[in-house]
Amino acid sequence: MLKLYDYSDSGNGYKVRLLLNQLGREYELIEKDILAGETRTPEFLSLNPNGRIPLLQTEEGSHLPESNAILFYLAEGTDFLPGPGLERAQTLQWMFFEQYSHEPNIATSRFLLRHRPDSPERQAALNLRRGPGKAALAVMERHLTDRDFFVAGRYTIADMALYAYTHVADQGGFDLAPYPALNRWLDRVAAQPGYFPMLEEG
Amino acid sequence: MLKLYDYSDSGNGYKVRLLLNQLGREYELIEKDILAGETRTPEFLSLNPNGRIPLLQTEEGSHLPESNAILFYLAEGTDFLPGPGLERAQTLQWMFFEQYSHEPNIATSRFLLRHRPDSPERQAALNLRRGPGKAALAVMERHLTDRDFFVAGRYTIADMALYAYTHVADQGGFDLAPYPALNRWLDRVAAQPGYFPMLEEG
Repeated sequence: MLKLYDYSDSGNGYKVRLLLNQLGREYELIEKDILAGETRTPEFLSLNPNGRIPLLQTEEGSHLPESNAILFYLAEGTDFLPGPGLERAQTLQWMFFEQYSHEPNIATSRFLLRHRPDSPERQAALNLRRGPGKAALAVMERHLTDRDFFVAGRYTIADMALYAYTHVADQGGFDLAPYPALNRWLDRVAAQPGYFPMLEEG
Repeated sequence: MLKLYDYSDSGNGYKVRLLLNQLGREYELIEKDILAGETRTPEFLSLNPNGRIPLLQTEEGSHLPESNAILFYLAEGTDFLPGPGLERAQTLQWMFFEQYSHEPNIATSRFLLRHRPDSPERQAALNLRRGPGKAALAVMERHLTDRDFFVAGRYTIADMALYAYTHVADQGGFDLAPYPALNRWLDRVAAQPGYFPMLEEG
């Protein structure tokens, strides 16, 4: 059976749990408390030298890190990942956008507000991420103005990847009211079969 | 013909130029000076709303951003991208690692040293990136200790993605001497047919 090493408050982990639920795949969940250093133990580092969750153990016992690589692995051959060619590359385009332009700003702001005490250093770190985070949301809004989903006119792993930290962006101090197309997309994702919001059971 | 919007000092652009050269694909190169704001003009933003190079115009006239999505698109069906399954997902694993854990530290340090004047702010930004950059190099070193290439025992787009900013890491203030396996891998990549180093013609 698949095993998922994860931390329940992680949006990167939530992406994978959402896909697994929507695929109807069974898996064993192994909670690792990143705040307690449980992903930096010698035992965990022997499974993922980069010391991060989520980490998937495949049916064959291999260990695959990086949330978006896990999404790709599990979705290959299903409707959640377009076939070879431009649409598949566009799916990856938005997943790389998510990890480079979105997550480091929006997820990191949420982490700082939830798990670090207020301080001038925390405020400076939040300030650095405000502009780039809003820019990422604006890029999404523009793309969604005349589209229902990010790629291929249907719900794919690009939507799952971007949904994870967008639907809790308010917890990072990002007000989503100025993004009407993005809000309609959030509702569309939440209406998918097998959907559950972060921090609730699948 | 393919068109590549690029900036010659960009390692993200270099990855794509390297693959195109190794595939023997012809393309038109359109230089955009990111320091002069040429990727933030209304005209360029109409092609890539995220305002970044590299940007590929496909044979059919579509525009694809995100360097690693472009690598995947161009490499699909060639030996540079392993087929469906775990090795393909591992290729993506290292490409997501590159964009999340490597590029924001090593490439950004290089950019600051090459294109921003010395200041306390620049030094603070460099200091923030030193530890995570060295951690990324250590993860690569550990992986390469008993492997010739990152995935599948052969040269793939995962190597191209990671090579780009690693072979100029010294320009970001990262000394590569403590990483012997990584240095042997740099030599292996440089021995591939069609190789050329960054900032030289392909």
